[in-house]
Amino acid sequence: MLASLVMTSLRDDVTVLITSFLEPEHVRRIAEAGTGVRVLYDPGLVAPPRFAGDHSGRPDFRRSPDQEARYRGWLVEADVHFDLDAELAPAFPTLAPRLRWIQATSSGIGPVVRRTGLDRSGVTITNAAGIHAVPLAEHALLALLYFVKDVPARLREQRAHAWERHSTRELRGLTATVVGLGAVGLEVARTLRSVGVHVIGVRRSPLAADETTRVDEATTPAHLREVLPRSDALVLIAPHTRETEGMIGATELALLPAGAIVVNIARGALIDEVALIDALRRGHLGGAALDVAAVEPLPADSPLWDLPNVLITPHSAATVARENERLTDLFVENLRRYREGAPLLNLLRL
Amino acid sequence: MLASLVMTSLRDDVTVLITSFLEPEHVRRIAEAGTGVRVLYDPGLVAPPRFAGDHSGRPDFRRSPDQEARYRGWLVEADVHFDLDAELAPAFPTLAPRLRWIQATSSGIGPVVRRTGLDRSGVTITNAAGIHAVPLAEHALLALLYFVKDVPARLREQRAHAWERHSTRELRGLTATVVGLGAVGLEVARTLRSVGVHVIGVRRSPLAADETTRVDEATTPAHLREVLPRSDALVLIAPHTRETEGMIGATELALLPAGAIVVNIARGALIDEVALIDALRRGHLGGAALDVAAVEPLPADSPLWDLPNVLITPHSAATVARENERLTDLFVENLRRYREGAPLLNLLRL
Repeated sequence: MLASLVMTSLRDDVTVLITSFLEPEHVRRIAEAGTGVRVLYDPGLVAPPRFAGDHSGRPDFRRSPDQEARYRGWLVEADVHFDLDAELAPAFPTLAPRLRWIQATSSGIGPVVRRTGLDRSGVTITNAAGIHAVPLAEHALLALLYFVKDVPARLREQRAHAWERHSTRELRGLTATVVGLGAVGLEVARTLRSVGVHVIGVRRSPLAADETTRVDEATTPAHLREVLPRSDALVLIAPHTRETEGMIGATELALLPAGAIVVNIARGALIDEVALIDALRRGHLGGAALDVAAVEPLPADSPLWDLPNVLITPHSAATVARENERLTDLFVENLRRYREGAPLLNLLRL
Repeated sequence: MLASLVMTSLRDDVTVLITSFLEPEHVRRIAEAGTGVRVLYDPGLVAPPRFAGDHSGRPDFRRSPDQEARYRGWLVEADVHFDLDAELAPAFPTLAPRLRWIQATSSGIGPVVRRTGLDRSGVTITNAAGIHAVPLAEHALLALLYFVKDVPARLREQRAHAWERHSTRELRGLTATVVGLGAVGLEVARTLRSVGVHVIGVRRSPLAADETTRVDEATTPAHLREVLPRSDALVLIAPHTRETEGMIGATELALLPAGAIVVNIARGALIDEVALIDALRRGHLGGAALDVAAVEPLPADSPLWDLPNVLITPHSAATVARENERLTDLFVENLRRYREGAPLLNLLRL
């Protein structure tokens, strides 16, 4: 077991508990973020990461009784959590009496916050919105190019050692409808427009003046069906709410033009997966890039794995090697704001 | 056999022979480009296309003796050729006595022009530079994202039905060296920079004032080795000349950082293919996207087909469904210039 890190600054103003793996250099940056910052962190008390930026860690990790006791002692002391410990969150009212603020390390945390009762606990919660904007926008761009240039056909020919000349579509000039225009959706729009894609943004709330110039057109979910027939691509990055659950069903998929591309970097629950599989099997859709699924991990017997026009990424499109560096940037800035009583960035509206 | 199209306008000022397949709407646009334009075209006299924008056509096509006689009769009459008939070009001085100008349908035609002796024939030749800029730039972008996001690993996991969370690199912030800064190279630079790639342009001739802002840095082939160690990607789009042949050999590949990506959308002869295969096998390179090869079609026994970190596209990255529409745009504009005695676009310097 690695030695524990308990860093104490001059005044014990705020105690931060880090609840998932973080590299020593980032832990140090938090500890040195200001006088009076006390950091509670021991890599031995959290699940070992499987890759850079892994905040779930190895699923087989279990704390020993001694480790559990230490961790729970820290829960009692901490004012602030870096990452949301979803397993213990339902018991935070008794386990973490001093807890005032949780900085989550992902964006789509509405459901887990509701499920664990944190939305009724009085704890302030900030998410990681924006941290994943560039990686997710790059993934959406890759997904569109992958199907526009028909990489699956290229790879079949390559496996057959077949030099078959062909022509492809072009990305430039296509229309993409982006559902969800938060920090990520706006970055997806910016990225696609920079390569000549016409972007229709869909959001429930009206666009601010400085946001209207960031899409070519904007509409609301109520008018989604009207724009689908001219959407060569549909990119989903809206949060999972009662309103968005199942918003893309058989009707919406049928309204897309033949050969359309669906990219889901939001949550699996936004799409009727049975209808999606049907539209893919019938060849109505040109392809689907799915970073999320109705049930995750995607069950081994899901037909999605073997459909030739599907690209599966296991809820990892957002995760890049520099993830923890950026999360620490966000946390250090929010910690400064927290201590000054200034509004926090990425405040989750509960 | 389809009926032949011989369209004659009022004055027989210029006779255009179309030597490869072109859709009727584009043939009509050329015929209607001005009074005095006569178009010679019969789809039965040219090889049937295998895909939109195919200018080679089915390799098993042969004209009957009657068809050959008609085609050769047209060769005698034509002042202008739309597309370069490489097979008969060596005999143009006798077969095509009136020929003054050939509008080629591809860009990298220097070697074929030299091989067929057209460079010494006095015929003006224009190429299709720029027509393929956007498709090739999109291909380069796809290639970089494909390897940066490690799609080969994703597809291996997908085949195994394995939901393995992971992190990837980001494209934003990487450095790409683009060798060749003509119309295509500049569009590649523009596209990559629009998604946050730092672009080093390499060209023999100095950049014009309005070109210097289109790359982040510029250098000459003589200094290529100096920039390779910080090139996360190397994109080749220079013409095949004595100077560029074999310009990327074992030394240059070794200078690239581990994990670098090579994209060849120029000509196979620019790279020492044996050295490339070696660098890929040793895992020094993160990947190679090859649209061209030393010998084309790439021989069935080439090890390149089966290397997991290679993406082969059979000299087709430039070809998109709208190719012939754009070629016709270019030709109609050049035809206007030709008849007015104005400088032609894309004039090949011989």
